[in-house]
Amino acid sequence: MEAQEIYADRRGSVTDHRIKTDICIIGAGPVGLFAVFEAGLLKMRCHLIDALPQVGGQLSEIYPHKPIYDIPGYPAINAQELVNNLVEQISPFQPSFTLGERVEAVERQADGSYYVVGSENTIIHAQVIVIAGGLGSFEPRKPEIPGLSDFEGRGVSYMVKNPEHYRDKRIVIAGGGDSALDWTVFLSDIAREVTLIHRSDSFRGAPDSAEKVFALAASGKIQLLLQRNLSSVRGNGILNQVGVTDKHKQEQLIETDALIPLFGLSPKLGPIADWGLNIDKSAITVDTTDYSTGIERIYAIGDINTYPGKLKLILCGFHEAALMAQSAFKYVHPAEKLSFKYTTVNGVNTF
Amino acid sequence: MEAQEIYADRRGSVTDHRIKTDICIIGAGPVGLFAVFEAGLLKMRCHLIDALPQVGGQLSEIYPHKPIYDIPGYPAINAQELVNNLVEQISPFQPSFTLGERVEAVERQADGSYYVVGSENTIIHAQVIVIAGGLGSFEPRKPEIPGLSDFEGRGVSYMVKNPEHYRDKRIVIAGGGDSALDWTVFLSDIAREVTLIHRSDSFRGAPDSAEKVFALAASGKIQLLLQRNLSSVRGNGILNQVGVTDKHKQEQLIETDALIPLFGLSPKLGPIADWGLNIDKSAITVDTTDYSTGIERIYAIGDINTYPGKLKLILCGFHEAALMAQSAFKYVHPAEKLSFKYTTVNGVNTF
Ligand SMILES: Cc1cc2nc3c(=O)[nH]c(=O)nc-3n(C[C@H](O)[C@H](O)[C@H](O)COP(=O)(O)OP(=O)(O)OC[C@H]3O[C@@H](n4cnc5c(N)ncnc54)[C@H](O)[C@@H]3O)c2cc1C
Ligand SMILES: Cc1cc2nc3c(=O)[nH]c(=O)nc-3n(C[C@H](O)[C@H](O)[C@H](O)COP(=O)(O)OP(=O)(O)OC[C@H]3O[C@@H](n4cnc5c(N)ncnc54)[C@H](O)[C@@H]3O)c2cc1C
Repeated sequence: MEAQEIYADRRGSVTDHRIKTDICIIGAGPVGLFAVFEAGLLKMRCHLIDALPQVGGQLSEIYPHKPIYDIPGYPAINAQELVNNLVEQISPFQPSFTLGERVEAVERQADGSYYVVGSENTIIHAQVIVIAGGLGSFEPRKPEIPGLSDFEGRGVSYMVKNPEHYRDKRIVIAGGGDSALDWTVFLSDIAREVTLIHRSDSFRGAPDSAEKVFALAASGKIQLLLQRNLSSVRGNGILNQVGVTDKHKQEQLIETDALIPLFGLSPKLGPIADWGLNIDKSAITVDTTDYSTGIERIYAIGDINTYPGKLKLILCGFHEAALMAQSAFKYVHPAEKLSFKYTTVNGVNTF
Repeated sequence: MEAQEIYADRRGSVTDHRIKTDICIIGAGPVGLFAVFEAGLLKMRCHLIDALPQVGGQLSEIYPHKPIYDIPGYPAINAQELVNNLVEQISPFQPSFTLGERVEAVERQADGSYYVVGSENTIIHAQVIVIAGGLGSFEPRKPEIPGLSDFEGRGVSYMVKNPEHYRDKRIVIAGGGDSALDWTVFLSDIAREVTLIHRSDSFRGAPDSAEKVFALAASGKIQLLLQRNLSSVRGNGILNQVGVTDKHKQEQLIETDALIPLFGLSPKLGPIADWGLNIDKSAITVDTTDYSTGIERIYAIGDINTYPGKLKLILCGFHEAALMAQSAFKYVHPAEKLSFKYTTVNGVNTF
């Protein structure tokens, strides 16, 4: 398809959000964030898009409060603090963001530039694509129950998008982490009946949330089933029963309108696997000269790439971002000569 | 020569300082320092040796008070502060240091290990050598005067090692930076006659040092010759005259016992060029899989190495150090299996 056609096509079908930039960075983890800085030094503007509602990738999603010890120059730094510092460091270059939207496709245009297409129909028109997708976009971890997928959107959901949806309904929540606890507490005021199922008898989530849940159970406001596993889902097109087994494999059926398994998010390579890139063990193979993918104008940096000697470390992604930027320059400023200057000598000149 | 022979030989000739370690790191710049951390995570001990009297490489020697803007996670950090932080970060791994000594030679032993030999006869026995020599060891910048080298050690020196050496002598100092100013002031109390020659009429050194020099000249305690260039050195085996030209190229001869040109230090690859490594434009070519040099057990990281896409940036050297350590492990702990763990998960366990 030609550029004009696609443009018209997307325009016609739904309201899209079109953004024009020099570099579209897919993934706003630490490596995608730092790439904005290296690009900015070379006068290239960036737009970042991430499936998560916040920046920071694995650091903000998985271990925000844990100290990292191998960021050079920081004997120890909390993951979220590193993310905050990176955001401050790139702010002179005014990156723009689309958050909470997964990239579904990249479409090459006749002039060599790309459209990056998001799941909510955002279209980013960029000269260069940098995939900094880490381990992939975070997707809900699903329990293994026969026929579960048949009820997705018909009573089964893996995240609470709109709590009002559950008003006066009977719901079953499963899980032992913070989301399971927090939504149980929150929805106990909205839903008619709330049952929380957890396979262990202690919770992984914050102790004070766990305490609230125990109190709600004690007062009879919710039903708490510990040391139980989800075993089956039943219904006639629409979910109406959930089966739960105890340690003796005895199954108990619970009448319900909704099942919300909250077992955390786990990263999945997702659509990136379908873009024609060379993939080796869920990572994109790249040339270490510039971390290019082999498809012109598409680079891959950070945890998402692989090459001989690759280490999935934050500090390695930083290096990859620097070399990528030097190489991407020719596509963004084809008429200009690249000159390498130290920040100490040249400072950080914004656009 | 076999290991035993060399040992005996060096033992016999002069008192040497023998040190045993896992990894000998040549160069204690930011990259050599961080290599201690990456090695330490994998239970490898390091000894660093540097020609300069302090650690920090270019950062401490050339621009200690300048802010660097492209250290990831630091919107700005002064060069010396970064060095201090790196020293703190590696301290759990208790590196040892030999400072103020240049490495002259590396000698392979029969068992594959190496002797690293310093200019003051320090011998470091290591399983692995990591060359983190930056732009080379810092050497004095020499003025271009015919026959100058004939008088080196016979009246001409490029640094003041022992001020007492100049007591009651006539000396000529040349230069306009801090060392030239500071030594002029200091030696004016010790030497019989001090002449300071500088090609411009303003000084690059600290204003208050310049002021002191002008005051000494005004009171006749020293002779100050501005807008003059060193043009010749004369003597009969031993220096006794220095020629100086003004802007009209008129030469004036000064009777003297010593000439001390203080034009700063500039890095020179030096002895590293003679170790049989592949050198391309004053840098060592390496394999980016692990930054190995092609000679077994010798790695090169930081500004001293080169490969397609190489950028002489601090952050790139950090990445190189991480990959090097993974590869060096097999020589230090041949019987152990390398396992990759995150610092966040595993912490920083010292030996
Ligand atoms: C528990 C734990 C401890 C760790 N400890 C350390 C440590 O001590 N030191 C260290 O260096 N590293 C550590 N790591 C690894 C480190 O977190 C990763 O190396 C780092 O997060 C990689 O950064 P990144 O930017 O490449 O990717 P990520 O942080 O994974 O970010 C990638 C982002 O891309 C987004 N994305 C992916 N696909 C799409 C798509 N199609 N559309 C939109 N968005 C998409 C994802 O949502 C995600 O936000 C640790 C990891 C974990 C899990
Ligand atoms: C003015 C200036 C501004 C800069 N600004 C930036 C910036 O903003 N960002 C950035 O990333 N980089 C910058 N740099 C570059 C940065 O300083 C280098 O990339 C960095 O110092 C390289 O570190 P290194 O450890 O590899 O080598 P170095 O810092 O050069 O240290 C090498 C050490 O090895 C020693 N050595 C060499 N040979 C021998 C030998 N035979 N025996 C004993 N010791 C030896 C030397 O004495 C030296 O101390 C700048 C450089 C300069 C000069």
